[in-house]
Amino acid sequence: MNQLLDYTDTIAALSTPPGVGALGVIRISGPEAIPVMASVFSGKDLTGQAGYTLHFGRIRDEQDHTLDEVVVGLFRAPHSFTGEDIVEISCHGSPYILQEVLQLLVRKGIRLAKPGEFTQRAFLHGKMDLTQAEAVADLIAATHRSAHDIALSQMRGGISRQIKDLREELIHFASLIELELDFSEEDVEFANREQLRSLIERILGTIRHLSDSFQLGNAMKEGVSTVLAGRPNAGKSTLLNALLEEERAIVSEIAGTTRDTIEENLSIQGIRFRLIDTAGIREAQDQIEAIGVSRTMEKISESAILIYVFDVLAMTPAEVERDVRSLAREGLTILLVPNKMDLNPYTKPEDYSSEWVDPEHIVPISAKNAQNIPYLKERLYATALAGARPEDDVLVSNARHAEALYQAGGALDAALSGLQSGLTGDLLAEDIRQALYHLGEITGQVTTDDLLANIFGKFCIGK
Amino acid sequence: MNQLLDYTDTIAALSTPPGVGALGVIRISGPEAIPVMASVFSGKDLTGQAGYTLHFGRIRDEQDHTLDEVVVGLFRAPHSFTGEDIVEISCHGSPYILQEVLQLLVRKGIRLAKPGEFTQRAFLHGKMDLTQAEAVADLIAATHRSAHDIALSQMRGGISRQIKDLREELIHFASLIELELDFSEEDVEFANREQLRSLIERILGTIRHLSDSFQLGNAMKEGVSTVLAGRPNAGKSTLLNALLEEERAIVSEIAGTTRDTIEENLSIQGIRFRLIDTAGIREAQDQIEAIGVSRTMEKISESAILIYVFDVLAMTPAEVERDVRSLAREGLTILLVPNKMDLNPYTKPEDYSSEWVDPEHIVPISAKNAQNIPYLKERLYATALAGARPEDDVLVSNARHAEALYQAGGALDAALSGLQSGLTGDLLAEDIRQALYHLGEITGQVTTDDLLANIFGKFCIGK
Repeated sequence: MNQLLDYTDTIAALSTPPGVGALGVIRISGPEAIPVMASVFSGKDLTGQAGYTLHFGRIRDEQDHTLDEVVVGLFRAPHSFTGEDIVEISCHGSPYILQEVLQLLVRKGIRLAKPGEFTQRAFLHGKMDLTQAEAVADLIAATHRSAHDIALSQMRGGISRQIKDLREELIHFASLIELELDFSEEDVEFANREQLRSLIERILGTIRHLSDSFQLGNAMKEGVSTVLAGRPNAGKSTLLNALLEEERAIVSEIAGTTRDTIEENLSIQGIRFRLIDTAGIREAQDQIEAIGVSRTMEKISESAILIYVFDVLAMTPAEVERDVRSLAREGLTILLVPNKMDLNPYTKPEDYSSEWVDPEHIVPISAKNAQNIPYLKERLYATALAGARPEDDVLVSNARHAEALYQAGGALDAALSGLQSGLTGDLLAEDIRQALYHLGEITGQVTTDDLLANIFGKFCIGK
Repeated sequence: MNQLLDYTDTIAALSTPPGVGALGVIRISGPEAIPVMASVFSGKDLTGQAGYTLHFGRIRDEQDHTLDEVVVGLFRAPHSFTGEDIVEISCHGSPYILQEVLQLLVRKGIRLAKPGEFTQRAFLHGKMDLTQAEAVADLIAATHRSAHDIALSQMRGGISRQIKDLREELIHFASLIELELDFSEEDVEFANREQLRSLIERILGTIRHLSDSFQLGNAMKEGVSTVLAGRPNAGKSTLLNALLEEERAIVSEIAGTTRDTIEENLSIQGIRFRLIDTAGIREAQDQIEAIGVSRTMEKISESAILIYVFDVLAMTPAEVERDVRSLAREGLTILLVPNKMDLNPYTKPEDYSSEWVDPEHIVPISAKNAQNIPYLKERLYATALAGARPEDDVLVSNARHAEALYQAGGALDAALSGLQSGLTGDLLAEDIRQALYHLGEITGQVTTDDLLANIFGKFCIGK
């Protein structure tokens, strides 16, 4: 499997963030973890202690010089995070002490761990599959609830179980086809083609379902990029403040008050929206404004949702439609927000409906009076979900998994049309092997050194 | 004793540095630590588990929503850092998760700890005295070996034992004198005046010995401020580089190359010297240089050691003496360094000896060839030690302790002269009470809320 790292040696790293604190924890994993720790520890004989126990004592260097008073936690293989013997040393949180202890361990023959090497060992020892290992990094990086939940679900094997089941069924057929190849002279068919077709169709259905969940999964993990745009003085900054319920953006009666784009996070039922307030779109009056407008267009091109705000008193439906048409593009959902309805309560949403905007995506508001803002939030949330239900679905949130699913789907599509056109067993077998390969990549049943290096290299040291 | 903090409730804090890491540890201390943790933990029933054990499980909030998979360490009173029940939760090192877990604990009735509150509880529960508590903060802040060693020695009660012994002897006499006051009409002397005098003299000796160690103790803790000064082109920057064994300062043949003062740390046998290279001292040629020279004078006034470097070819002994005399002040040790001895190997150190400089403080060198640099380092080390031996002495490294010793010494001096002049028992008793008070302040046998707030307020949160 993986040849990059020798995992029979013993590794150590600082596992808590760098800097001064009350505590700092050094983690050691590998066959020498407990004997080496015992050799620098003055207190009980650690080699005789059970796993899941804590021990108070001192760490002493070769000159019997005390480095620190510590509490040591022991975990014995295979009942540990990595599946190896693990020692966790809880030191005083002094960078000097932590450095000295690590250096002492290195002098005792322990190697400093590479980024993610503890989790990689957990994977290599079968304690978790690749999606679960990736979820560990996602969990640590999560900054809001939806990203946290999706990582935790993945860490508990959410997507893996589905992929593994699909793969096993496919392997069964693949082996039957391979068998046919061995008897190719005799023209037998061990694999029932009709059953194979129905299996592939079912698997393709699941793959498409998972692929479709990537948009939501990714949104839940990364947040949904949402641009506020519109003509000058439409009330975009007032709306931003109303959504955030704070005075974030400077608002004034003067058209063109906002120049820089302002980005803020808004959490709606656990989903994070990255709200981007922009300069109004018009023929720029000066160069600074021109830069602002071009930034607005750039932000729109990178976003998933556009909230187009306009002043109901200042614009006709035809003008609104012209603006919206010029901004529309595939993959961008437009929410149309007629503003200042406090000044014109007779605004009819249906007047503004067009081929670019769903009627249910039109939400008249008064940004100034925070009128209808809760409903706008509901629409934002519904748009981000886009029909998926986060509570009962396994979501794909990792671009690598989405890509592998796409590749597996392509191979199965080829197999399916091959079946239809009576493709020979060896070509069919090749397509199915491709699909198996890509599904196996997701869970790590198939890996390459590059893949592992790429995944674990992004981890922090000590994890 | 201390009324500021109620320490019957249960407190919690993040004990590892803030930021993203593999692990983050939350510490809970107090009577509710284990029951509250058990109420949010899904795994074994923690309330039935022994101290010094580790347990894997999940933390779940009120909605049964999993916050994290964690390892929990239990310590049971009084066998813990604070002397109370302690739970240490090892979470994934995500600021989001750590925040969520802390908030959950707060909703369960646990209070967020104030800075140093865990250590303060350790003190209030008699797990350590005040000098040991202070040493915990010093240990965490230590950035080099001598500061680390001195903190560790203090944490193990180095100075406390001496102070407590002195105090007990003094208390014995104080109580005899108080007894006399009760019987004052009868003119009896329970306290033998001769024994009291000899006791006070002995205690004063110890106090002076401890006070004297403060210079070294403080140097070991804070580093020794050491200025390199001399006329332009004397070779100060070359000497700095030679001492550091790297090209730190820009050197050139042009007089006045160094303008800004450069500060670097040099460690000699574990003692840290803060080496300060300065602009050459002369009539400034321009305003920038004038600022440089005035900074040099300022640095010298703040330093403990001055290394005065001069060019043996360029200056006569009389000129050197004039410079040195103008720089000398009390508390500043001058090392005289004739430089460029490679160009004049016949330099005689004794030619430069004067009332301002000890003969053993004259060290001819060649900075360019790094000649005699090891000997200069030896002299620096010896000067910093100033006769004290760090290995067998209890050192005072804390300004608060030095101040209290000074106050106690003053009170005992007064008692001593009172004894000589036949002072009455009540006045004598007052002096001795003063001395007892100041000695007690060091170890915390006497405390005030202000004193505790001042000491623990400087700790980091979570310690």
